[in-house]
Amino acid sequence: MARLQVPVQLRWSDLDAYAHVNNVAMLTLLEEARIAAFWSRPSGAPAPTTAVLDAGPGADSRTLVARQEIDYRLPLGYQREPVTVVLWLGHLGGASMDVCYEVRDLAPEVPGSAVFARAVSTVVLVDASSGRPRRMNEQERAAWMPYLEAPLELRRTARPA
Amino acid sequence: MARLQVPVQLRWSDLDAYAHVNNVAMLTLLEEARIAAFWSRPSGAPAPTTAVLDAGPGADSRTLVARQEIDYRLPLGYQREPVTVVLWLGHLGGASMDVCYEVRDLAPEVPGSAVFARAVSTVVLVDASSGRPRRMNEQERAAWMPYLEAPLELRRTARPA
Amino acid sequence: MARLQVPVQLRWSDLDAYAHVNNVAMLTLLEEARIAAFWSRPSGAPAPTTAVLDAGPGADSRTLVARQEIDYRLPLGYQREPVTVVLWLGHLGGASMDVCYEVRDLAPEVPGSAVFARAVSTVVLVDASSGRPRRMNEQERAAWMPYLEAPLELRRTARPA
Amino acid sequence: MARLQVPVQLRWSDLDAYAHVNNVAMLTLLEEARIAAFWSRPSGAPAPTTAVLDAGPGADSRTLVARQEIDYRLPLGYQREPVTVVLWLGHLGGASMDVCYEVRDLAPEVPGSAVFARAVSTVVLVDASSGRPRRMNEQERAAWMPYLEAPLELRRTARPA
Repeated sequence: MARLQVPVQLRWSDLDAYAHVNNVAMLTLLEEARIAAFWSRPSGAPAPTTAVLDAGPGADSRTLVARQEIDYRLPLGYQREPVTVVLWLGHLGGASMDVCYEVRDLAPEVPGSAVFARAVSTVVLVDASSGRPRRMNEQERAAWMPYLEAPLELRRTARPA
Repeated sequence: MARLQVPVQLRWSDLDAYAHVNNVAMLTLLEEARIAAFWSRPSGAPAPTTAVLDAGPGADSRTLVARQEIDYRLPLGYQREPVTVVLWLGHLGGASMDVCYEVRDLAPEVPGSAVFARAVSTVVLVDASSGRPRRMNEQERAAWMPYLEAPLELRRTARPA
Repeated sequence: MARLQVPVQLRWSDLDAYAHVNNVAMLTLLEEARIAAFWSRPSGAPAPTTAVLDAGPGADSRTLVARQEIDYRLPLGYQREPVTVVLWLGHLGGASMDVCYEVRDLAPEVPGSAVFARAVSTVVLVDASSGRPRRMNEQERAAWMPYLEAPLELRRTARPA
Repeated sequence: MARLQVPVQLRWSDLDAYAHVNNVAMLTLLEEARIAAFWSRPSGAPAPTTAVLDAGPGADSRTLVARQEIDYRLPLGYQREPVTVVLWLGHLGGASMDVCYEVRDLAPEVPGSAVFARAVSTVVLVDASSGRPRRMNEQERAAWMPYLEAPLELRRTARPA
């Protein structure tokens, strides 16, 4: 069971007037973690082995988010140190994958590390010129397969009160 | 079956480098529609009958988003006219509700109006001083009940390819 | 002395943890007012006579901001009614213009209307295909000339304490 | 002549549909650099010697931006590696300071490093409880004095065409 850990820096503007990371801003943190995990680095800078997808502006591929689901578990206050987004795959399809996340204040192995949100995004690989889904190639599948686990089941029915 | 229609203005910065409304920005549109629908207007300006919740900065109540789920159906390009967020309730609990949304380019009754996203948010009423969930009161329940429908079932398993 | 008045809706996420519109978000309000004032509306919806520039995605022209200057005069809290951005021109050059703004809680003619920020942006007209500045045409100049005034002088040296 | 260098990570959502960092988002990069430079780190994590100001949510002090001025020199495209914000002081007053910035793609000593924007912000120290400006204390002044230089003069009159 392999999982990636991606540090993501909060920004001051992620907080709203309740002094917590805004519910929408939390998904920006997921987006940044996902890009760090899966998009290749043209600069050749160190990157996880999963970072094989050339998907920035002008690239051959794009990644489109088809679906997202997020459970907010605790309000996340401001912290100057990056949060840790733990990331793995719940499904690898022909042209898409389900990315699963946990947002934590500290790395999971640090005592006291807490989970602030859990989420799943379905990401579709798209050919940039045609705008249509394209099949995952062998290099991509090989890079991502080690991070495949049983899908994350977010609480479906639990509601306060 | 009563539904609210809330016009929400796009901002130029909602677009990302793919020239579509960013997947995260789409949830900001939902947030703005939800606030317009449910938060009261201290100014006394015209507001829907559902706008009974005093939840801005300094108010007695807060609304916390406990969960969100969104299906993106079509890429939403830039448009100068507001999108229409259609909004209703899929569940009314003791201290929470499920808000259901459709994001459309045009009002639903306009020929050619298309659905760009469907979503559900679970919103919890919170007492601002204690930070704990508080029960929905009679005025709130009466205002919101007419918009209660069968819950929106988002596609759970459908995946491209 | 003609000035435009553009209503701009705040978003909840414009506030930061100080419960005021974030200093950066204030410039997003200016951007929205500027687009409403100067970009044409493909839909044919009502627009000010100054809205003659076709500058959205895929258009022939782009507008690039070359310079901005802003004085924050009062913290702007959350308000559900749109703020009013008053807007005029401080300079009309061959390929650029200086857009001057006042951000107000209420329209200027309403008693008690206060100024929260004053700003100037230098906006350059750019040919989208070449990426180079292009000259203002006669239609544009004619549409914008009535809003030309003496340039806004922002306080340069005043500092608290 | 001492200057700070603060790496700031771009986010995908900083780009607009022109596929460049949006003019407003550029000021968010400045904000993040300024906070990294001047706000203390409660965690005790390594920080520059200038990071002495306790100004987050719930702190005794706040920093308010009173004025900003920015020149955009080149469009900044997407890059996965952080930009470098070079930062120094152009003025140290009784209760305020002028923070000067250069936004670069690479650290200034790297051959080919280019300047994308230059800016100045006037930042006022505010007592959080009273909301009023408060005097800079000796510790703050001592920490910041080494970074004081002649003020940055942004081009005032230069305009394309």
